[in-house]
This record gives sequence, structure tokens and C-alpha cells, in this order.
Amino acid sequence: MENGCQNGGETRTYVIPLELYRQNRQKLLLALRARLAHLNLPSKGLVLLQGGEEHNKYCTDFAELFRQESYFAYLFGVTEPGFYGAIDVADGTSHLFVPKLNPDYAVWFGKIEPPQYFKEKYAVDAAHYVDEMPDILKRTEANAGGKVLLYVLHGLNTDSGLYCKPATFSGIDEFAKDMKTLHPVLSECRVIKSKHEIDVLRYTNKVSSAAHVKVMRIAKPGLKEYQLESTFLHDVYFNGGCRYVSYTCICATGPNSSILHYGHAAAPNDRTLKNGDMALLDMGGEYGCYGSDITCSYPINGKFTDEQKIVYGAVLEAQKAVIAKLRPGVNWVDMHKLAEEKILETLKAAGYLRGEVADMMAVRLGAVFMPHGLGHFMGLDVHDVGGYPEGTKRIDEPGLRSLRTARDLQEGMVLTVEPGCYFIDPLLDPAMENPATSKFLVKEKINKLRGFGGVRLEDNLVVTADGCENFTDCPREIADVEAVMAGAPWPPSRSKK
Amino acid sequence: MENGCQNGGETRTYVIPLELYRQNRQKLLLALRARLAHLNLPSKGLVLLQGGEEHNKYCTDFAELFRQESYFAYLFGVTEPGFYGAIDVADGTSHLFVPKLNPDYAVWFGKIEPPQYFKEKYAVDAAHYVDEMPDILKRTEANAGGKVLLYVLHGLNTDSGLYCKPATFSGIDEFAKDMKTLHPVLSECRVIKSKHEIDVLRYTNKVSSAAHVKVMRIAKPGLKEYQLESTFLHDVYFNGGCRYVSYTCICATGPNSSILHYGHAAAPNDRTLKNGDMALLDMGGEYGCYGSDITCSYPINGKFTDEQKIVYGAVLEAQKAVIAKLRPGVNWVDMHKLAEEKILETLKAAGYLRGEVADMMAVRLGAVFMPHGLGHFMGLDVHDVGGYPEGTKRIDEPGLRSLRTARDLQEGMVLTVEPGCYFIDPLLDPAMENPATSKFLVKEKINKLRGFGGVRLEDNLVVTADGCENFTDCPREIADVEAVMAGAPWPPSRSKK
Repeated sequence: MENGCQNGGETRTYVIPLELYRQNRQKLLLALRARLAHLNLPSKGLVLLQGGEEHNKYCTDFAELFRQESYFAYLFGVTEPGFYGAIDVADGTSHLFVPKLNPDYAVWFGKIEPPQYFKEKYAVDAAHYVDEMPDILKRTEANAGGKVLLYVLHGLNTDSGLYCKPATFSGIDEFAKDMKTLHPVLSECRVIKSKHEIDVLRYTNKVSSAAHVKVMRIAKPGLKEYQLESTFLHDVYFNGGCRYVSYTCICATGPNSSILHYGHAAAPNDRTLKNGDMALLDMGGEYGCYGSDITCSYPINGKFTDEQKIVYGAVLEAQKAVIAKLRPGVNWVDMHKLAEEKILETLKAAGYLRGEVADMMAVRLGAVFMPHGLGHFMGLDVHDVGGYPEGTKRIDEPGLRSLRTARDLQEGMVLTVEPGCYFIDPLLDPAMENPATSKFLVKEKINKLRGFGGVRLEDNLVVTADGCENFTDCPREIADVEAVMAGAPWPPSRSKK
Repeated sequence: MENGCQNGGETRTYVIPLELYRQNRQKLLLALRARLAHLNLPSKGLVLLQGGEEHNKYCTDFAELFRQESYFAYLFGVTEPGFYGAIDVADGTSHLFVPKLNPDYAVWFGKIEPPQYFKEKYAVDAAHYVDEMPDILKRTEANAGGKVLLYVLHGLNTDSGLYCKPATFSGIDEFAKDMKTLHPVLSECRVIKSKHEIDVLRYTNKVSSAAHVKVMRIAKPGLKEYQLESTFLHDVYFNGGCRYVSYTCICATGPNSSILHYGHAAAPNDRTLKNGDMALLDMGGEYGCYGSDITCSYPINGKFTDEQKIVYGAVLEAQKAVIAKLRPGVNWVDMHKLAEEKILETLKAAGYLRGEVADMMAVRLGAVFMPHGLGHFMGLDVHDVGGYPEGTKRIDEPGLRSLRTARDLQEGMVLTVEPGCYFIDPLLDPAMENPATSKFLVKEKINKLRGFGGVRLEDNLVVTADGCENFTDCPREIADVEAVMAGAPWPPSRSKK
């Protein structure tokens, strides 16, 4: 069966198989039972998740476009607001609980479907109304103590510092509640992507790569940054069915390209592109809640200057070096340092730095030019969960503390590889002041790069048994970028990438 | 001075003058002082508003794109999150309070600007940091009782049923607080648009009308509804600088066009357009927080059938009849009834209804075909505030209870005029059962229209001293719609509309 709710039917957009969600539930069940066995606890009770709800903009009646909460999307694939979902730990039965809608809904929002419709739509074992939920849940075999135990989701998102909201409903006090066990187990399930998940992520990347190429072709002096954003959004939606993007588009040109998270409401992609600018465009479509996160950098007039070639080349060499190493067992912190090393080596070769790269590494000079982490897990969230499982910690050093994971790689992890090199005054100024770092910096040369902005190249990859597969297909070599911007086909006709 | 933050500079997008916000503040001051005088209260104290804050998607670190709260936008035009704004009731001094940002902000989000920057950017009398706010506010002349009085915003949004959130901050207990006086006064200020506001609304409508025409030209069988949405979003953003839309696009085709608020996440514009369908496209760009709300209906193959001409013609006649009457003093409920009458007359003439239209009106038969209100105020919110001032009530009758205002028109009110005619099973079935209404219905003819969907035509207008100005410029006459869909220019070259 297929999940036709998002983009099925006659289009060429991807049809997500419902089997994806069934497998996700099965994976959770096995992992949770193993965890309970390890704790000498019985495999009883229910996993209970509460789906997302629709919200209005402030006190108005403008309902923001709903997007399902990611954990709920992972297990059930439900696109409508107001649902609950449960999985019986003992027998694996899956239940959806559907909100009972006011009859007026049929006039304003569409046909009111019964639970049976959603049972079939989402291929769960049973579906009921939300108001039947307490009774249905109580039919489960009770745990020791006489109450049915609910495993609800409560735990820290290590990227945001926020805690996810555990399911709650009127009558929950009649159940026993476990707030600790589920979160680490379910987060870890999401870290290793299944074949079906990889298929969706590959599709989203294909659509988003093509949109980046389209933007690359229209970029020229005189346009506004937001016109690049608009072109990307249109292309992933019109051609790929991506109604959402994984994050607000970063369309940074000229000096803005050194502002790592440019593009938000206080810096809204509103600069006019100028001849001589570098553009840094970090944009990714989302499909069926699965994201992408791709960055391209290029001169908006289509030809790299010598200076642009140096900075761009430093980042490209770093990205290629990392990708060549990716395979199970490799440590992500080592990859981050490898990228730093490559960037420092290039900057040294070009005369921007002096001294030994090993000594620069020892004082963490790389973080002056690349203050963010090399990359992160990516999936249902653009910064996907599981980067720091309970008991692991961030390394509190410049650059490394920005890493969203420090783990060893495993097959099925999906990551971004996104080295960058930026010239950021608030980082260069103290580095030039501090004797430990200033001795490496050729100030008169570096000062000429103030206002240059920065370069970032970001691909999305899955770790395979013996290496990795790169989902992203954008021109990266300088010659390819210039050729595509001049109108050459991509991928090149002679060899389909 | 100009507000360059949104889309100033080299583009041809509209530059909103800061004078707009200064005039809005001045208007509030005069109205509030008059209200206080009426209550025999002194013109002392401070109006204090809290701007909107950024929110993350669930527990992730994905910050949703910020959009300013509308009352705050009205008085200050601030596009950044986390601000407060105050106006001294006695002397009119305006203050902005700017959040103090973490130094890291400079690396991740952009240059950190001091309060002085925002004082100039928004042309207020003074700007300070938020943490200075309690001290600054206390310097105001205290009201009777020795405490400075804060007029904070608390009141019902009559469209959503939600209450707006009054400003709050650490230390507010040291002030006296009035939660009642401000809301009705400020809402009423927003009802009558100023010349500057009308200019922005005219611009937003121009951009959105042009985008509707573009969509009209590409619509054809085989496309997905969301491809029309994507085309609209791209056009208003790329060509008009509208990063936001006033509401989620309704791209309803075929039977979906009778679902009044189609397009939400549970009905996500994902149907394939078919030959013979009518499309109902309700979409509006937003610029500088000022919205638009335009609906076009047309056959997606570009040629009306006889049946489509009848239903479309009924709605068009209703819209034209209403627009011809609009001027100060006209009552909106009367306009709603006029639209109903015109629709019923056409349906009767075409043989879908029998009996006297006056008798149909007496049993509110019009609401079977047009269950929504004729139109609503529009401005910073798509359903703008002030429809039912305190002490006024909705008329509890079919159709009329959906009206978002029942007021007499005044010069400067901006409204939508959006009659519609739909064939909605959950409304037709009871109407055919009920003897009071069934006697008017020619069932065998009406039953043929089940599945037809519906037609809505929606323009945005401002009431002028002696009539109205229609901001919307989309083809409406059947011949014009067919010509534009066949490639004719719009507006027609012979006569610029």
C-alpha cells in the first residue's frame, strides 16, 4: 500500500510506501523490548505519542500551515493535526486515534472521514476516535501495580536545548506513565535510516539539487537575494511536490555570506546582487517530512576571481577529503579536524597563513575560519536527533563545541558534509589580538578579504557498508560551476553522474 | 524617511514610508485621549505593546520564519522579533525597546545594532534595551495612586475567538495596569485605513492580481493544484517582494471548489486538474504585513460550459451589484442579502429554483448556496479586526452568522466582496429534506450540479467618500477570462483598466 496523501497519483513525484512507517514501528518495538529486557522489565504497556496540533498566528484566525511533529511522522506518517498514536509493546498492535470533528468541518474544510478511513490510509491495525482513547488503552494488559503503563516521549533535543512535549490527555492520571525509557530508544532508531527512508531522502535531494542548479543559472547582478529564494521554493514545489522546506532559505551574497544563518526575518534575503559578489545559498526542500540541506557557493557574475578560487578551492578540497574518508567506524570529530586541516593548508599555500598547520590545529585556529561544525545528522529534522546520546558530551573547544554530533559513523547514518571558510570580523579581530593565534595570520592579506563573506559547500550523504553515497548532485568543481552558469547542461551530457 | 528594511533599494517593490506608522501612533493617541476624557480620566500613562517572538518548530532548533504581530506592526512597523514599544499618552513620545543579543549572534545571525540604529530605522523618539524598560517607563509622570499606568492590549478577536496576549515583563508588578481601555480604541483605529495604508494595500493587490493572471494562463488539465499554488507564491515573491501570503493558498478544483477553506495540511492542494473542472483559487500576497485576499474562478480548460456560465454568471452579477452600491452609510448585512438575492434570481431564471425570491429570502435559502459571509475587513490581518465592536452582535441566522462584520460602511474601510455559489452535499441534503426550503429546489436539476464544486469571485476594495475603489484587477467577465486564458494581454491593450 502507498501513502497517497502527500503526492500520489498521476505526478512523477515520489510515492512514499506505508511500509516505511510499519518498519519504523517494528524497529522501535524490537529496540524497546531489548531495552526493557536489559532493565529486567516486562514487555508490556503502550508507547503513546501525541501528534502535532494546528496553531493560529497570534490571536488571529489565520491557521499556520500544519507540519507534523517529526517523531509522530516517523512512526505513523500522519499528515493531519490532532492525532494520537499508540503501539502495544507486548503484541505490536498499532492504533491511531482520530479527532472527532465538528459537522461544520465538512462545509469549511472537507469531507469528515471515519476512523476506518485512517486505518486504511495509514495501514495501522486499528483506528478509533480520540475520545475513545482512554477506554481502548485500558484494554491493554496492565503492568505490575494494576495500571496500564504508557511510555510517553520526553527528552532533550541536543540541538535546540528544548524538551519534547510528552503526550497528554484528559484521563491520563488513570495510567502509569514512564517518561524516561522511550526517548533515547526512539531517537536512536531515527539515527540509522532504513532503505525506505534513504529512498525518500535521495528523492528530496534530487529535487533540491536540481532547484539549486536552476537558481545558479538565473543568478546575476541586479537581482535581489530573495528572488533566488523564490526561484528555489518554486522549483522544489512545482517540480518536486515539496510544499515545505527544511529550514528558512539562506540566500547570502557579498558580505552577507559570512553570516552563517542569514535569511531570517531580521536579515531577510533583501540585498541586491552585485558584480564581484560571492553567493552562498543554503536551501533544502522537504518531502513527506524528510528533508535536505544543500549549500552552493559561486560568483554571481559566473566567473571566479583568483581570490575566490583560493577560498572556494580550500573548501572544496576539504569537502572532497572528508567524503573520500567516510565509512563506518570513522569518527566525526576526526572528519571535522581533517576539514580544518585542509582549509588551513590551502590558506597557508596561498600566503594567508604562516607557520606549521599542526601548530595552528593545536590552538584551534581552524575555528576562526569555520566556526560551525562540519556537518550533522539529517532526516525528519534538518538537524536530526541522536547526535549526543545520553552519557555523551560536546567537546568544549572552539569549533568542536558547535559539532552537532561527535559519534563514530555507522552504516545508514545520513549526514551533511559542509565545510566552510568565512571572514568574520567578530572572529578575526580577537584572533588578530591574541598572540597564540595572531602569529599565524598574515594580516595584510587577510584584511583584504574582510567583506569577502564566505564559502560553504554542503552535500548530504548516507554512510554505506564500505563508504558512502552522495545524494547531492550540484556542480562543485570550479570549471563545472562556471560552465553551468554559462548555460552548459547539468549533469554533463557526456557522462550522467 | 523610508522603511528600507523590507524591500527598499534598487527594486521596483513598494517602499513603505515610516510616516505610515507615525500617523498610526498619532491616530491612536488622539483616540485614546478622547476616550479617557470621555471617561473623565487623565491623559497620563503609557501604551505598552509587546511585539511577537520567534518560535521553534516543536522541540527542534528550526526557527519558524518570524512575522510581526499585527497590532505591533501597525504602530511601529518593526520586522524583528523580541521588541517592546511604548507611547506616552501625555506627550506622545514613542519608545522602542530592543532585545540585547548574545555576542554570538554576530557570527550566526548578523551585525548587532545598538538601540540608536533602531531609533533611526523606525523613526521613533527614543530606543533603549529591553532590560532598561522598567526604569525608562517609570520616568513617566505617575497616575493617581503613585504608580505609572500601563495601557496593555487585551481583548477578543471576534474572528478567532482568541484573546490577544497583553504585554508582560519582569517587573510589571511595579506598575498599574489597564487591560480594558486600549483594545477597543486601537482596534477601531485599524478599521479606517489611512492614505498610506491604502497605498500599501493597493500595491499588494496589484502584485497579487498579476500573479492570479499568471496562474490563470498556465492552468490546464494534468497539472496538480499545488503547481498553481507554487506559481502564485513565486510570482508575488519574485516580482512583488511578498515573502509571506495572507493565508494558506486555496487551490481547489473540481469538487474541491465547494470546500470553502480547502488547501490546509489535511487537504493539501494535491488533486490533478481535469478537463471540465472549475477552479476556485483564493490566494493573496502580503507585503509589509499588509495583505490581500483575491479569488478567481474559471474552467481549467479555458472555456466555460453553459452550466458553468450560469453559476459563474450568478456570482458575477452578485459581485457587480454589490460593488455598484458600496459607499459610506450602506449596511453590510444589506449587501450580503443583495448578493444572495442576485444569486437566487439567476438560479431561478436558469430553472434551478422555483417560487418567489422574496419567499426564499425569508427562509434564508441563500445560505444553502453561500454559507459564508459576503466579505470582511482586510488589512494587517486577512480577516481584519473591528468587525464587531463591543456591544454589537452577530445575527444568529444561516449565512448571516458567518458575516465577519455587520457594520455600516465608512470611508476608509477596506473590505473584500466575495460572493460565492456552491453545491455542498451537507447543505443541500438537509435543504432538500426540510419542507420550508425543499419547495424552492428543482431537485433533478440541482442534483446534476453535485460534484460541480463552486464559484467564488473576490475583490478587495476601499470605501471612498462617494463610492469605492477596487484594488483588484483580474479578468471577471466571461469573455475576458476566456481571452486571457487563450493568451490575450491583461489588462487589455486597448484600454488600460
